[in-house]
Amino acid sequence: MSNTDRRLARLRQSMAERDLRALIISKPENRRYFSGFSGEDSGADSAGMLIVGPSWVRLVTDARYVDRAAEEAPDLEVVRRGDEWAQTMAEVMGALAVYPVGFEEEHLTCQRRRALEEQARGRWALVPTLALGDDLRAVKDDQEIGHTRRAAEITDAAFGHFLTIARPGMTERVLAWELERFMRENGAEGLAFPVHVAAGTHAAMPHAPLSDHPLAPGEAVIVDMGARVEGYCADMTRTVVVAGGAPGEIEQFRTIYGIVLQAQQAAMSSIRAGMTGQEADALAREVITAAGYAEGFTHGLGHGVGLEIHEQPSLRKTAEGQLSSGMLVTVEPGIYQSGWGGVRIEDLAIVHDVGLETLSRSTKELIIIGE
Amino acid sequence: MSNTDRRLARLRQSMAERDLRALIISKPENRRYFSGFSGEDSGADSAGMLIVGPSWVRLVTDARYVDRAAEEAPDLEVVRRGDEWAQTMAEVMGALAVYPVGFEEEHLTCQRRRALEEQARGRWALVPTLALGDDLRAVKDDQEIGHTRRAAEITDAAFGHFLTIARPGMTERVLAWELERFMRENGAEGLAFPVHVAAGTHAAMPHAPLSDHPLAPGEAVIVDMGARVEGYCADMTRTVVVAGGAPGEIEQFRTIYGIVLQAQQAAMSSIRAGMTGQEADALAREVITAAGYAEGFTHGLGHGVGLEIHEQPSLRKTAEGQLSSGMLVTVEPGIYQSGWGGVRIEDLAIVHDVGLETLSRSTKELIIIGE
Repeated sequence: MSNTDRRLARLRQSMAERDLRALIISKPENRRYFSGFSGEDSGADSAGMLIVGPSWVRLVTDARYVDRAAEEAPDLEVVRRGDEWAQTMAEVMGALAVYPVGFEEEHLTCQRRRALEEQARGRWALVPTLALGDDLRAVKDDQEIGHTRRAAEITDAAFGHFLTIARPGMTERVLAWELERFMRENGAEGLAFPVHVAAGTHAAMPHAPLSDHPLAPGEAVIVDMGARVEGYCADMTRTVVVAGGAPGEIEQFRTIYGIVLQAQQAAMSSIRAGMTGQEADALAREVITAAGYAEGFTHGLGHGVGLEIHEQPSLRKTAEGQLSSGMLVTVEPGIYQSGWGGVRIEDLAIVHDVGLETLSRSTKELIIIGE
Repeated sequence: MSNTDRRLARLRQSMAERDLRALIISKPENRRYFSGFSGEDSGADSAGMLIVGPSWVRLVTDARYVDRAAEEAPDLEVVRRGDEWAQTMAEVMGALAVYPVGFEEEHLTCQRRRALEEQARGRWALVPTLALGDDLRAVKDDQEIGHTRRAAEITDAAFGHFLTIARPGMTERVLAWELERFMRENGAEGLAFPVHVAAGTHAAMPHAPLSDHPLAPGEAVIVDMGARVEGYCADMTRTVVVAGGAPGEIEQFRTIYGIVLQAQQAAMSSIRAGMTGQEADALAREVITAAGYAEGFTHGLGHGVGLEIHEQPSLRKTAEGQLSSGMLVTVEPGIYQSGWGGVRIEDLAIVHDVGLETLSRSTKELIIIGE
């Protein structure tokens, strides 16, 4: 049984539990996961939709993608759409008398739903589903873990490159581009997300935009990045400090860095399958709270990673779902102080029954740049 | 009156024509156009939504974007969302008793619409709109044209770089990366779309994926690319041929290249404001048809370009809309032959009352690589 067949068998089970005879898949990551076809949407321009029936799968796509789909997914039946995509969808579904038909409420636009409803004319009912594919993608198979391992290795190598080139006076933007270039030239097909380099007060904003700010003495520098391999994302953060600065600046960094590292290690050493996302989050949060920095840890502990950079499961205060063996998650506590900066340390890891296996190998020693 | 105020005045006129008291804008390009806030969505993770009221505009976004929005769009009122974004949206709208409220049917997901409907509880009606913002973005102002000019210049420079480095034996993938790197290191904040290099039989597929195919003697090589500056896209295609090959291969290329160039020039010299997209398309299509290659011209003549790489207007057989002065369009006829390859020549141009002004300055002379 191929990976795709195994995935489809699990999907059909979810469909049966909801009394669905067929499911329309429009979300690109789910389309890829359940078919092997990697075409990417470009804005509103869709690379096509899957229709998963009781014993068959069809991809309705346009002329541009027909050959590519046939090459990437030889078992998939590709239907070239006509001028009106919804009409082609209706022809595929109508000919097979499948109903009711589910769709992905979290992805389908209102316009596309209306176009499908207009075609249905009572022949089949369109039923919203929520996160069916996302749920099934949370536990990874060996092939997926292999791609992620490779992406994590490239990301580690890029951090090594960062340590050899980063000097006071270089800007966030220049460093981010150097890291991107390194990953792209060393095996990454692309990035999991734009490289994030935030220095000084920018490091206090978990999503500060890149700037032309040059690294200055005493500043904390957060580097958050991930390579992408065969669609799979890596995600890692390290924080370093720039040598020099006002008296006590490096010491302040050292204190906060130590607390974040302790929190990160507490979580890394105790998270295991069976724990809830909430319990995992608490492992790190307790350390930071005990040190008096509860207010500074402004986000959740982590998230699932796969074809999407943020996917299931969630590791945060409000996450009730359980972690399962084979999930890929980040563990990334942080402390941020407005007007000063921040520290975040993030590893990517596989959840096993006995604990976490880390994929991120970059050092977590405290590093002073420009010494 | 600022650019943003002018844009909002036109939007409110469109809203009034549809009896809308307010409009929810979720589509990122429209959000940016009508506010100046450049935050980008990441997959399903939204950087926020605008609510445009009769005399005010509010951005509902999460903590990550609050500072950035305030910096980029100082006049915009930023509302930090609570745990349930739809509830925050309802609070903004409820407090102001605005109804009916439009939304962008082409962008809002079914899930988000449902969340808003659940919050409305009859207090306001949600009314689908289609392409309101897209319609208004089609005609560009001087600032937009300035950014696009810069993006086109960088794209031209990249093609110059291509001509200095391209040699037989280099792969499509290596060349595409070299072009991306050049643009990113010479003023582009990013790409308008992934660089497309298609050689030999791949050139017969208008959207072939990048491969490790090395440029071989006699092959046509299509290079389609665009830099991005301040969000604005450039778009240009040139086709070259590799020296050598079987007898007659270069001659076959020369014949087809000549026809495509003649078609492109016919369109470039005659398109002007007031013409329909259909009429523009026919200008090039007639030349290609007269030469006996009608079947080989498998796509439309061109499309609008701006914050999106494909936007209004459309220049194709079925496009009834009129071209207006100030629109930015591509003119890109092509001839493709399965099993052989293809030729496409594309310029980016501004529509004026008296004709087109081209922004693409790269040579259209027939170029033989590796001679």
